[in-house]
Amino acid sequence: MNNHLRIGKIATLHVMLDEEERTYFSSAFETVQICEGKVGSMELQKVISSVETAVKRSGMIEEKLYRETHALYHAILEALEGVTRGQWALGEMMRTVGLRFAVVRGKPYELEQEGEWIAVAFYGTIGAPIRGLEHEAIGLGINHI
Amino acid sequence: MNNHLRIGKIATLHVMLDEEERTYFSSAFETVQICEGKVGSMELQKVISSVETAVKRSGMIEEKLYRETHALYHAILEALEGVTRGQWALGEMMRTVGLRFAVVRGKPYELEQEGEWIAVAFYGTIGAPIRGLEHEAIGLGINHI
Amino acid sequence: MNNHLRIGKIATLHVMLDEEERTYFSSAFETVQICEGKVGSMELQKVISSVETAVKRSGMIEEKLYRETHALYHAILEALEGVTRGQWALGEMMRTVGLRFAVVRGKPYELEQEGEWIAVAFYGTIGAPIRGLEHEAIGLGINHI
Amino acid sequence: MNNHLRIGKIATLHVMLDEEERTYFSSAFETVQICEGKVGSMELQKVISSVETAVKRSGMIEEKLYRETHALYHAILEALEGVTRGQWALGEMMRTVGLRFAVVRGKPYELEQEGEWIAVAFYGTIGAPIRGLEHEAIGLGINHI
Amino acid sequence: MNNHLRIGKIATLHVMLDEEERTYFSSAFETVQICEGKVGSMELQKVISSVETAVKRSGMIEEKLYRETHALYHAILEALEGVTRGQWALGEMMRTVGLRFAVVRGKPYELEQEGEWIAVAFYGTIGAPIRGLEHEAIGLGINHI
Amino acid sequence: MNNHLRIGKIATLHVMLDEEERTYFSSAFETVQICEGKVGSMELQKVISSVETAVKRSGMIEEKLYRETHALYHAILEALEGVTRGQWALGEMMRTVGLRFAVVRGKPYELEQEGEWIAVAFYGTIGAPIRGLEHEAIGLGINHI
Repeated sequence: MNNHLRIGKIATLHVMLDEEERTYFSSAFETVQICEGKVGSMELQKVISSVETAVKRSGMIEEKLYRETHALYHAILEALEGVTRGQWALGEMMRTVGLRFAVVRGKPYELEQEGEWIAVAFYGTIGAPIRGLEHEAIGLGINHI
Repeated sequence: MNNHLRIGKIATLHVMLDEEERTYFSSAFETVQICEGKVGSMELQKVISSVETAVKRSGMIEEKLYRETHALYHAILEALEGVTRGQWALGEMMRTVGLRFAVVRGKPYELEQEGEWIAVAFYGTIGAPIRGLEHEAIGLGINHI
Repeated sequence: MNNHLRIGKIATLHVMLDEEERTYFSSAFETVQICEGKVGSMELQKVISSVETAVKRSGMIEEKLYRETHALYHAILEALEGVTRGQWALGEMMRTVGLRFAVVRGKPYELEQEGEWIAVAFYGTIGAPIRGLEHEAIGLGINHI
Repeated sequence: MNNHLRIGKIATLHVMLDEEERTYFSSAFETVQICEGKVGSMELQKVISSVETAVKRSGMIEEKLYRETHALYHAILEALEGVTRGQWALGEMMRTVGLRFAVVRGKPYELEQEGEWIAVAFYGTIGAPIRGLEHEAIGLGINHI
Repeated sequence: MNNHLRIGKIATLHVMLDEEERTYFSSAFETVQICEGKVGSMELQKVISSVETAVKRSGMIEEKLYRETHALYHAILEALEGVTRGQWALGEMMRTVGLRFAVVRGKPYELEQEGEWIAVAFYGTIGAPIRGLEHEAIGLGINHI
Repeated sequence: MNNHLRIGKIATLHVMLDEEERTYFSSAFETVQICEGKVGSMELQKVISSVETAVKRSGMIEEKLYRETHALYHAILEALEGVTRGQWALGEMMRTVGLRFAVVRGKPYELEQEGEWIAVAFYGTIGAPIRGLEHEAIGLGINHI
């Protein structure tokens, strides 16, 4: 684990820490493009579109380019596997999520030709649709872009 | 997300941060039982047994009690879903992992009857069995114990 | 298979047998808490909530305790894997279920510290949404509680 | 659930009951072809081949006919979904099974053209590779033959 | 791969080729029963029912026979695994499909007792619900009937 | 489906057709880079490495670049979903494959910035480890590179 730049760690720390805690890592956060947001839903579709919309609005990816949309989309799906852990479903399983997300775009490898990669991180809660009947969940997806 | 004690966040920070960075969160780490270790393998079986062995040796769970083994086991499996993202396989998919893990046992809820829960976190790399052809991976599993 | 008390077998027999056949096993049924019900739906969400509602109304688990809800929830999910066999979907796959369910809470192990466990069993039919175009299905999930 | 002949229920009862308990249902067992056996393993491959070998030896299916082998094979796979509940793995997940199986071939539907169907049922234990650290598991698969 | 009659290849060629290209294989297409159609949707349910309806209307399977419906249904599901590649979802994953399908019924094996089999093939595009942000997808399912 | 260049269709035709049939599409095959090969195995690992080795030897991707390896790897995995249809396993499920594969690299979209994409196609048989007890299987995976 001697990556040049750990975009996954940066995204995960950014999404998991509060304002004050983030100050410890401000130098790391400044080396990359970061886009963040939050979403609460019983539909995975809404979670995906919240991230896509935030990333496109921030200008981090080119909206009309399928290539970049495709890279982001698969990174989101992989991150959601960590959140859902085994079944691609929320409301259909009587569960809901309250998530924050952070997306980081950067060059994690020393070799210049490795180019840019994208990391999507989620952190929040998953549980029954009753306040408090929930526990934490995390997910991280990484793709070349 | 106003849990009393976020055992998932604590486990993830512990596994993801280096020695120096951990000092920022030392007070949080002191409020819970933590067990850590690392494992590199092309077999999920070895990843599971490394965590189980470390946890049992540390005395965090009672080795002979199926109840506690069962709780830990399912938390490990859920954490590995985030690492493997969709298919339960490493070598069979021509991929290998280099992971650190942290296991936290504590009482995340204010209500005393909610009792103890266990959080298992992984952080490291997953990729081709060739040094450098890999990217980061994270996983978190939580269960009542 | 020399468990002290086979809560899985008891739940499965209870859900699969008719009134008359149950009399053969009445002594076994009397040693544990049993809750039963039935549900027909094209939505897994309704199957889950039917079981949860029946169990909570019967007082078998403490409704406000996340710990017990969490244990029951995962036992239901595991039982539904046997019913759905591979894909977490009913209506989205053009299929429907007509199921009876039985939930048993008891102490299956001789060792007192193993404490209480919960077994959820389903039996009924799965098939096309046309009467008769269906076959039998069974599922059993077990968890510590 | 007004099937003419419930081959799934018959297979499940046969596999789950002991000698004495089976006598309650002897008339049902006599109306169909039944083949039984048992297998303990950390490899799903061995579980599948144990059933296939037992069924072929009993003459219940025609060994050289791919059509019948294909029908049996998919019924076995579906039954194992109930046993494994979510991941197609035993040893790779540090778990082992001790199972009995029963295979029933018969005509479950009143309509003569519906022809013959096959039901495969498993009952036993699944758990850590340490005696006693295990709980019950059930699986049922049904296919046209 | 020396099957007597490759119903999978025939179905895939039929669904993938345009009118003019099909003429190269007209002799192969004439040896089997073929049913075709197309469907665009964000719901897998609609994809399944489009195929079922087309096949039933064409008279290729007997509508009221569960046996034949069951064989076709599982062939459709297997073909959709190739289209969806890992998750049983379309709209829930913010993706949509535009597919053509071809269903072939025939006797692929030399041995007369192997009887009839059915092949379902899909070809088209899968992608974001925005015109052009999509790539090709293929799926093939085969079952005995 | 008005893609500029259908790399998925080209790869699938190339892998599925024999020498003579390929002549009908020779003009399409000449517009892209194609790499082909074949593999028979009970291990998915060997299927993956056969494709990777063939592609690297042909010079179609840069062996030392993780970016290109990562793109190819995920295209192979997606193609294998169509072959395996639901479970990531061959020998563990008592089944074996005999496959041909074709990999195509090209620019499927009119927009120059969409750049290069890769398509991996498999065609062959899957079945019991007994000659003849098998049926056809197809898989196609596509990724940006």
